[in-house]
Amino acid sequence: MKDHHEMYMNLALQTAAAAKGQTEPNPLVGAVIVNDNRIVGLGAHLRAGEPHAEIHAIRMAGEAARGGTIYVTLEPCSHHGRTGPCAEAIVKAGISKVIVAATDPNPLISGRGIAILQDAGIEVEVGICEAASRRMNEVFNTFIVRKRPFVTMKSAITLDGKIATSTSHSKWITSEEARADVHRLRNESGAILVGVNTVLKDDPELTTRIANGRNPVRIILDSTLRIPLDAKVIRDGKADTWVFTSANPPVERREALESLGIRVFATKGIDTVDLSDLLDLLGGQSISSLLVEGGGEVNASFAASKLVDKLILYIAPKLIGGRDAPTFLEGIGIANMNDAIEFSDIELSKLGVDYRFTGYPKWQ
Amino acid sequence: MKDHHEMYMNLALQTAAAAKGQTEPNPLVGAVIVNDNRIVGLGAHLRAGEPHAEIHAIRMAGEAARGGTIYVTLEPCSHHGRTGPCAEAIVKAGISKVIVAATDPNPLISGRGIAILQDAGIEVEVGICEAASRRMNEVFNTFIVRKRPFVTMKSAITLDGKIATSTSHSKWITSEEARADVHRLRNESGAILVGVNTVLKDDPELTTRIANGRNPVRIILDSTLRIPLDAKVIRDGKADTWVFTSANPPVERREALESLGIRVFATKGIDTVDLSDLLDLLGGQSISSLLVEGGGEVNASFAASKLVDKLILYIAPKLIGGRDAPTFLEGIGIANMNDAIEFSDIELSKLGVDYRFTGYPKWQ
Repeated sequence: MKDHHEMYMNLALQTAAAAKGQTEPNPLVGAVIVNDNRIVGLGAHLRAGEPHAEIHAIRMAGEAARGGTIYVTLEPCSHHGRTGPCAEAIVKAGISKVIVAATDPNPLISGRGIAILQDAGIEVEVGICEAASRRMNEVFNTFIVRKRPFVTMKSAITLDGKIATSTSHSKWITSEEARADVHRLRNESGAILVGVNTVLKDDPELTTRIANGRNPVRIILDSTLRIPLDAKVIRDGKADTWVFTSANPPVERREALESLGIRVFATKGIDTVDLSDLLDLLGGQSISSLLVEGGGEVNASFAASKLVDKLILYIAPKLIGGRDAPTFLEGIGIANMNDAIEFSDIELSKLGVDYRFTGYPKWQ
Repeated sequence: MKDHHEMYMNLALQTAAAAKGQTEPNPLVGAVIVNDNRIVGLGAHLRAGEPHAEIHAIRMAGEAARGGTIYVTLEPCSHHGRTGPCAEAIVKAGISKVIVAATDPNPLISGRGIAILQDAGIEVEVGICEAASRRMNEVFNTFIVRKRPFVTMKSAITLDGKIATSTSHSKWITSEEARADVHRLRNESGAILVGVNTVLKDDPELTTRIANGRNPVRIILDSTLRIPLDAKVIRDGKADTWVFTSANPPVERREALESLGIRVFATKGIDTVDLSDLLDLLGGQSISSLLVEGGGEVNASFAASKLVDKLILYIAPKLIGGRDAPTFLEGIGIANMNDAIEFSDIELSKLGVDYRFTGYPKWQ
């Protein structure tokens, strides 16, 4: 029975994933209705303002929904939106059992949809494929609950952890396949962040180089506004650029940047950019996902603040060597091995000749 | 037909591998005789002084060898050893076809065994599973051809390439499974090498901690003989310790060490230990395999001299961070990404919670 549940819920997850990238600001949700061992309805939420997954599935099932079981990847909603609360629609359709992958991430309403179902005498089971469901909406869940973007730190490194040679040469560490994957990541991100030192060194464009790609907002960490006014991210107009500073950035520099259409955000940090404040400010600007592509010092600041939700490393099977060659995580670092940053849900896969590591830091 | 060849040669390779660790100074060799689609003989070289693989297989096959095909992982020998040249034994047995994985690595005699067979009218095919055969005897092949040990560099690192925290704490980076694998490596190595700084910092034993384990000779790189006379590797008597120095080490220190039973080898290096000379000296002492367990500077010296035959990395999915935390490869490093050290025959596998990388540097 458990196996059946997982099979149908996986189908609901796959159905949900079909709408990846087009449901914002809503999450991905999928639903499958089964009656008498037959699939009688399928649905996915396709776009904000359009029906939720359950409604599509109930419509497809018609009378066959009655007495059936619905598998839904997220707790049915309890609020009166454009198509009414899904929980009530499930009751009305005569469905007798509801299998839910994950409860609503919003603590203010979590459990309410389930309560409506149970009050109507419907059997509810929660937690089938829960991790996969939460992962699918990791950006949405973080943004809804914490009102700040989901932070993915990305770096391309050699086996010895380096991101450049001692003379700052870094073209290219990884293969074309890995670099293409980075542009896919950028395409899915609301914003991309580097430190001003990266701008000074590399003068990058920080755009998405794939067909029909969306450019993320370009975020520059620059506590004292050292960014050159002729930097590409300032002048090229290819995407918005927002510069984040410490509490009191030089007024003239600020005005010069603003006159070029660049937004400058002063954070609470006295001498440095306060990263927690930065994330809150980004959340306030409806940025739900941030890709940190920093050098070793910027990355270390995020790690020291425990503000990394996910790490993606592209690891080239090469060696650079050099005691002065920068690694992707510098800063002060930890002192005792027991304090090393560990990860959950690790995935390691081959990508061209390189490897792709994905993990979620277990912050203590 | 090619598939059959590989199937039988793989069986010969497996048969050979059964004697792993007990054939020194001889290589691992296996043989399979097939006649009329039936395996009629199997053999492996088990121990120096005992019959070669082909002889065992021919004896097992008896009259059934006549007209058959022999698969042998290494070119049959042409020299008159204790059991006569195998090539002649194959001719005498009436075998009609010989499939060879790899020719003899010794350029002085390579091809002679094959010539004897061909002169007798026997069909010979060379190169089936050649890479696997050469890999199986990588230590032997290097030692025979280059008269110096096969050098394996081993390190246990975090995802950011570090081998310790900025305060030199390193217990433990990897899991028990990975550490057990290191002791298996030590058990298979003729010698193990560290720099004197590792002795000064950690005072290690450098022994094999597995049941019935063999301890490798402990090699210390110490250009000016700074090693403390009360270091464990000097005093504990658990294995031989050889100290390698620059050309003119301090006489008193040398005598003090020698009076404690420690061998001191002066290399040609003026201020440092000449690594190429060190390997030649080890070869002269019949050391066929060396495990380099250096810190970042010793590892970098070996890499700069292109004297690494194989790299084994145990990679813990953890982060240490820290601009002052040492990576496993320091030194000067390369300047241009095009000069990065790349690898062939890469293998990456899971080992407990860690990963094990194996590769062969492609020196240019």
